[in-house]
Amino acid sequence: MRAAPGPEEVRRHNLGSLLRYVHLHGATSRAELTSRLGLNRSTIGVLTAELTTAGLVSEAAPRETGRAGRPSLVVRPESSKVHAYALSIEVDRLRAARVGLGGCILDRRETDRPRGMPLLDTVRPLADFVHDMSRAMTDDVRTVGTGVAVVGRARRADGMVGLTPTIGSAEEPVDAALRSALGAAGRVTVGNHADVSALVEHSRGVAAGCDNVVYLHGDIGIGAGIIAGGRRVAGYGGYGGEVGHMVVNPYGRECGCGSRGCWETEIGEYALLEHAGRAGETGREAVLGVVNAAMSGDSQAQFAVRQVGEWIGFGVGNLANIFNPEAVIFGGTLRDVYLVAAAQIRSRMNAIALPAFREHIRMRTPGLGNDAALIGAAELAFAHLLDDPLFG
Amino acid sequence: MRAAPGPEEVRRHNLGSLLRYVHLHGATSRAELTSRLGLNRSTIGVLTAELTTAGLVSEAAPRETGRAGRPSLVVRPESSKVHAYALSIEVDRLRAARVGLGGCILDRRETDRPRGMPLLDTVRPLADFVHDMSRAMTDDVRTVGTGVAVVGRARRADGMVGLTPTIGSAEEPVDAALRSALGAAGRVTVGNHADVSALVEHSRGVAAGCDNVVYLHGDIGIGAGIIAGGRRVAGYGGYGGEVGHMVVNPYGRECGCGSRGCWETEIGEYALLEHAGRAGETGREAVLGVVNAAMSGDSQAQFAVRQVGEWIGFGVGNLANIFNPEAVIFGGTLRDVYLVAAAQIRSRMNAIALPAFREHIRMRTPGLGNDAALIGAAELAFAHLLDDPLFG
Repeated sequence: MRAAPGPEEVRRHNLGSLLRYVHLHGATSRAELTSRLGLNRSTIGVLTAELTTAGLVSEAAPRETGRAGRPSLVVRPESSKVHAYALSIEVDRLRAARVGLGGCILDRRETDRPRGMPLLDTVRPLADFVHDMSRAMTDDVRTVGTGVAVVGRARRADGMVGLTPTIGSAEEPVDAALRSALGAAGRVTVGNHADVSALVEHSRGVAAGCDNVVYLHGDIGIGAGIIAGGRRVAGYGGYGGEVGHMVVNPYGRECGCGSRGCWETEIGEYALLEHAGRAGETGREAVLGVVNAAMSGDSQAQFAVRQVGEWIGFGVGNLANIFNPEAVIFGGTLRDVYLVAAAQIRSRMNAIALPAFREHIRMRTPGLGNDAALIGAAELAFAHLLDDPLFG
Repeated sequence: MRAAPGPEEVRRHNLGSLLRYVHLHGATSRAELTSRLGLNRSTIGVLTAELTTAGLVSEAAPRETGRAGRPSLVVRPESSKVHAYALSIEVDRLRAARVGLGGCILDRRETDRPRGMPLLDTVRPLADFVHDMSRAMTDDVRTVGTGVAVVGRARRADGMVGLTPTIGSAEEPVDAALRSALGAAGRVTVGNHADVSALVEHSRGVAAGCDNVVYLHGDIGIGAGIIAGGRRVAGYGGYGGEVGHMVVNPYGRECGCGSRGCWETEIGEYALLEHAGRAGETGREAVLGVVNAAMSGDSQAQFAVRQVGEWIGFGVGNLANIFNPEAVIFGGTLRDVYLVAAAQIRSRMNAIALPAFREHIRMRTPGLGNDAALIGAAELAFAHLLDDPLFG
């Protein structure tokens, strides 16, 4: 414990709170900010003026309210003037976006990523996207930094990224390589794809208001971003949430990690395609092909979805007993499977999770859809600004 | 976010920080407190004087230091004058203790608990212990409250206790019944046995300094207290950590919870005794019998320990991938099994946990031994005092 915060620290904290509020909730009247932040009207006025001068928010009279009296000014984030770059390194594609303060996507680019492409080889196309988007910007736009979501393990200490065993195993300094390639686009912060998706669904998506959340991302492998008591379960090295390597079937298939029967060997892309008799196919399109075939009545596709659905419910039941969450969110290919197997997943989960652990659980798909990882990556960059709006 | 803390709040916070420090670390010189708490010498003097007046700490000159100059006064917690009652409701026994500020056990009582004894029937013998211990106290001793550790699920909202499926299933208002039976012994706070053990091993035991800890308690069932990022993983209802019902063997034994192959069916007391050909026996003595026989070369006992050790390592590997912890602690009967099966547990864990998740893991038995739950229960009572030393 340290001595009490000084006035400068209090001011910085209050500026951050106000900016964070409009960043997450959009245009908000001064009257509502006063009540939400527990500060008085004159303090809100001073803070808003400082943030306006800094070019971070703007104020305007609201549209006609129909009520008598002088309407409260509305404060909004300067979404078109203040932005972050968001990059997402996924198994099959690379994506980049410009995300405005407030969380809106202003511009985006995407390209395929050949499977097995070394992580460092993704730096060039991603940097090209950033440079391309920057050319379309006017001179008065401020870049706060770049956030990167990667389907891999981002080490907390230095941003060194290790891939999961299924898609590669080298540790590569993606962080440093991007920083050097981006140059002027500033500070680079790297996070795990499922972690940043979990955090953004928690702050502004389907899990808003839930303090205990399991976000599952599926592709070849399975990763989780887990929030307990409102905070991410990061673990010692920042690696927490490797639920894809929770062994669920000791007599199951060999896994790329060297173990056997890991959850991802039962619910990942390979398992679904193999059960569907389509072992030669790969990628999200192939997964969607099975899901669509199942919905059209193809019995082998239905069998595949049922098998995978059983094991999804199984693992979610285990995680429910361990974390006692309020919400479980299915992202990536798990989203597609969830949409056709929800009842079965729920039923299998119910057989494993203890009564007090299951009834209240909300199962959902990402509220931000496929953009969760991009907006989540941008949040990594905005975090510095929100911590210290005038100097962050 | 709220406005900055006022001077009264800062003072209360500082008093709590100082008292918490000596409560956890024992006698500490004013000079060390000054540096540890980041406060100046005169503030430490004022705070110490207030806590002394309140009868919570005392000050004395240290023993000869051999150094020149006036030695710094040493501040110690008033362990014999300020205490909490700690109660522990376990599968086979009931325990009670008086725990002094600072965490030392001043007095204790214990009795067998017949298996299946309803939770509410434990209230009378526990209250008798408290009354008995109180008679031996002098009039100047202050009781801060009573903490209860129970092998069951304590609901965060109201202290209602639900037993695990293996030892009963009713929810009973243990909290309210104890409050009424104890009368003058004040505020009653109930927590889960593994949770309070985890917290106390984290604050003053073998996991001090580790922010990511899995504490496992074994008896008939298996429970965990899990600490992620320095805070307990409580979950939505306060029930987090029911790792005993993580299914590890989908083709395994039926569990009392209605599922099959739960971790506790493979590593709990029943599994060990059955593998050892002693299915008729029960209790910790029976478990120790198997462990001792294994150490003496009994081949069936060795087989039993090996079987259970394999599955312990299996589940710990899963938890390592999920939480990326620094320390795993084995309490209850798992402690006994761990001591003869450590190498095997480590080896099986290594086969499941990913490389970055396993090398650094420290496996330990509780630093506070069997007293972890009692001292942890007392911490529940002390928490109110430490939050607000003069009025808590």
